[in-house]
Amino acid sequence: MSTALVLTKQEFLEHWLGHRKLTRRVIEAFPEKELFNYAIGGMRTFAELTKELLSIAEPGLRGIVARDEEGYQHNLPLDTKEALLKRWDEDTPKIIDLFNRIPEEDFHKEHNLFGEYKFPIYSNLLYFVDNEIHHRGQGFVYLRSLGIEPPHFWERF
Amino acid sequence: MSTALVLTKQEFLEHWLGHRKLTRRVIEAFPEKELFNYAIGGMRTFAELTKELLSIAEPGLRGIVARDEEGYQHNLPLDTKEALLKRWDEDTPKIIDLFNRIPEEDFHKEHNLFGEYKFPIYSNLLYFVDNEIHHRGQGFVYLRSLGIEPPHFWERF
Repeated sequence: MSTALVLTKQEFLEHWLGHRKLTRRVIEAFPEKELFNYAIGGMRTFAELTKELLSIAEPGLRGIVARDEEGYQHNLPLDTKEALLKRWDEDTPKIIDLFNRIPEEDFHKEHNLFGEYKFPIYSNLLYFVDNEIHHRGQGFVYLRSLGIEPPHFWERF
Repeated sequence: MSTALVLTKQEFLEHWLGHRKLTRRVIEAFPEKELFNYAIGGMRTFAELTKELLSIAEPGLRGIVARDEEGYQHNLPLDTKEALLKRWDEDTPKIIDLFNRIPEEDFHKEHNLFGEYKFPIYSNLLYFVDNEIHHRGQGFVYLRSLGIEPPHFWERF
């Protein structure tokens, strides 16, 4: 394995946190009703997609740190925009704390995430961020189709 | 700067190439007509989004390797699905070659990408991949709204 450094632990965390700020803006941009009732082509609502993201990020990191293989639960009891944003904000410091607790030498060790996805930890973490970008991009389309301008993709502050 | 290793150069490249394979499947999944004519909410067609991706990946890497700050040109003369896929496939070996030519010690040096985006090279490269995931996620919604099942998000082979 090459030891060339593309990305440090801290850089990865900052990259992820920047994406989380943008995703939070997208949740905020939805009207309450459409957040929970609107979707395109039989897909999930953006509230449902947000719950998926919430059920992966902090719980997944918790599993990685504890080497726990408990499954995920996407169906979180969060039924208002306020509740989704509150959980989003509560999870951020937990994510920072948990991420910082992953020993540097462990990023290339395997972890059977949620008892289902056995990959190196770095790969699990990339999946968390990729999946967030993917679903948030879908939220952008929902917003546009509702006539609402989404935040800029590069707004990560 | 921490020297903790999250991701090696080779791992990053493989991660990106896996995403490119998935994006190629999404281009393929569109019917010819809808690839060039269909969009939601005043957005760009998936052909236009694909041209943006094509105009960033290989040209951006070329700029990074040559430290050239020439601007991008999204409006590529590619007017059929076949032409888009052909360019996609032609770019892949170029991307591999160019990426491998970035010296390991340069990933944290700044480059003024396309004469506009002055960030460390690792950050430019993350943007390439993030932007591809973002727009591809939008393509998933277009496909779903056309009644076409997109490929699985985790299909990177």
